[in-house]
Amino acid sequence: MHRKPSREGVQAAAARVADEVIRTPLLPVEIGGRRLWVKAECLQQGGSFKLRGATNRLALLDAEERARGVVAFSSGNHAQGVALAARRLGVAATIVMPADAPAVKRDATLAAGARIVAYDRATESREEIGVRLAAESGATLVPSFDDVDVIEGQGSVGIEIAEQMRAATGELPDKVLVCCGGGGLSAGIALALPEAEIVTVEPEGWDDMARSLEAGEPVPVAPDAPATRCDALQTRLVSPLTLGALAASGARGVWVSEEEVADAMAFAARHLRLVVEPGGAVALAAALAGKGGPLTERTVVVLSGGNVDPAVYAEILASRASG
Amino acid sequence: MHRKPSREGVQAAAARVADEVIRTPLLPVEIGGRRLWVKAECLQQGGSFKLRGATNRLALLDAEERARGVVAFSSGNHAQGVALAARRLGVAATIVMPADAPAVKRDATLAAGARIVAYDRATESREEIGVRLAAESGATLVPSFDDVDVIEGQGSVGIEIAEQMRAATGELPDKVLVCCGGGGLSAGIALALPEAEIVTVEPEGWDDMARSLEAGEPVPVAPDAPATRCDALQTRLVSPLTLGALAASGARGVWVSEEEVADAMAFAARHLRLVVEPGGAVALAAALAGKGGPLTERTVVVLSGGNVDPAVYAEILASRASG
Repeated sequence: MHRKPSREGVQAAAARVADEVIRTPLLPVEIGGRRLWVKAECLQQGGSFKLRGATNRLALLDAEERARGVVAFSSGNHAQGVALAARRLGVAATIVMPADAPAVKRDATLAAGARIVAYDRATESREEIGVRLAAESGATLVPSFDDVDVIEGQGSVGIEIAEQMRAATGELPDKVLVCCGGGGLSAGIALALPEAEIVTVEPEGWDDMARSLEAGEPVPVAPDAPATRCDALQTRLVSPLTLGALAASGARGVWVSEEEVADAMAFAARHLRLVVEPGGAVALAAALAGKGGPLTERTVVVLSGGNVDPAVYAEILASRASG
Repeated sequence: MHRKPSREGVQAAAARVADEVIRTPLLPVEIGGRRLWVKAECLQQGGSFKLRGATNRLALLDAEERARGVVAFSSGNHAQGVALAARRLGVAATIVMPADAPAVKRDATLAAGARIVAYDRATESREEIGVRLAAESGATLVPSFDDVDVIEGQGSVGIEIAEQMRAATGELPDKVLVCCGGGGLSAGIALALPEAEIVTVEPEGWDDMARSLEAGEPVPVAPDAPATRCDALQTRLVSPLTLGALAASGARGVWVSEEEVADAMAFAARHLRLVVEPGGAVALAAALAGKGGPLTERTVVVLSGGNVDPAVYAEILASRASG
């Protein structure tokens, strides 16, 4: 039987990746007259938390596995995380990426030295392509969330949050609002912070983690889910590993609208001086819209990632500039 | 005879303000294939380094002086720094601000609880207004750069840079590119980092620090200096205090064009996920344009501040989005 991700695993992963990732700052923010905290993970190398899980996963490969390379499928952020982690370890990386992924993510993945294989999001299965590539080359497949080592690596965000809040206030977080696609980051944070209430945040119509937590089993996204700018959160089915860890922690999920996401991106630019992509802004959107329940002085909102095509970003900011 | 700002003074100021300011991150950045460092001071509370000098200055006021309040004149960032420092200490703050200051800076200063007195940049003297207000109320004038305690407070940026780079690499910075208006930040950093080469960066036509360093005495900005988006750097005459500290360190100055500034703002958004105002982006602009001389692995580029009107920011990003 495979092991499940655990708090001890997260702590070990946090120690393992500490020298390889940026310890992103925990910044104060005022929302509705109350001061709470933002974990600015969009400042991570590659622009998102994905470097953490990838670094932890790759660090655990043996020399023979490293020599055969790694394969990952990703709309972009996981791609960059794997590419950067692989480059540092001298491992060849192949990334299976949708043809409509934001150019900013594709370019950065290429810049990190990875090979990209494009696929059609509507007609092809990235999972099948990834598995085939891995089988052909003997490369190791690095899943974006359905993997114990990846989940535990992402959980290092939670370990840092606890250390940083304790250093700043002497206390631990009591609530964390966190963006959720497949749930790797949220599950890792739930394991890292067992005393905190975890609220996963997803785009409207893509709130399958919220529904899965309610149902007690994975519930897929409806086939007719609306379009969303949150390309990083377009995951159609969560994993038993991530759902299990979140359910065990008593987590619940909420969703935000595209308009609320745009408001949050403008707020982050103006008040936090941070560039956040749509999928990375959902937790802040929930906090601003009052959707995550009451905010406290020990609430942490996770911001990640920060990879948004410049033209789209400029357009969103312009739409909010007159406000 | 008044004392001059000193390295010991900067070290004392850094210890004094440490618990009151954000220890902003030192982030890796790749420019032209070389990895160097960015001090992301735009993440400071109030969006710029100005909180540091104001906090140091106000912390040194006695109870009687605090009761009479403080007055400052500023185009915006110093205003916010003084307003935030004053609010924390329970001191009343009056800010003399040009009527054409960016709304984002005016609004944030009001939000921090300060009173604003507007003046016409073309016809009125903010110095005269500030001095008159201070004389009338007995309030203490907090200069934006021509003040030993303010300069030493800003120098805490340099102390942090040294500590952070040493922690990350075991080495000290050998070069710092830094935005320069009146020179408070650059002078403080020069005192904090005597072993580093300091390069001040100013907007085109406003490079009076560069010319003053060449001439060995304060040289004012020409009356017909071109318009610049760098509102934070529109200082017409440097101070003997800042010039003296910079000259003693062997600093030199360079200038960047408005186009180079816009390029740097777009680069910061895309590659660093940081919102930087025009005046805060000049040092990065110089690094990207190769104007600060050869870059090394121990070079630090200071980014500060991050207060730009959203419409202007969106327009600048849009102008660079097709590139």
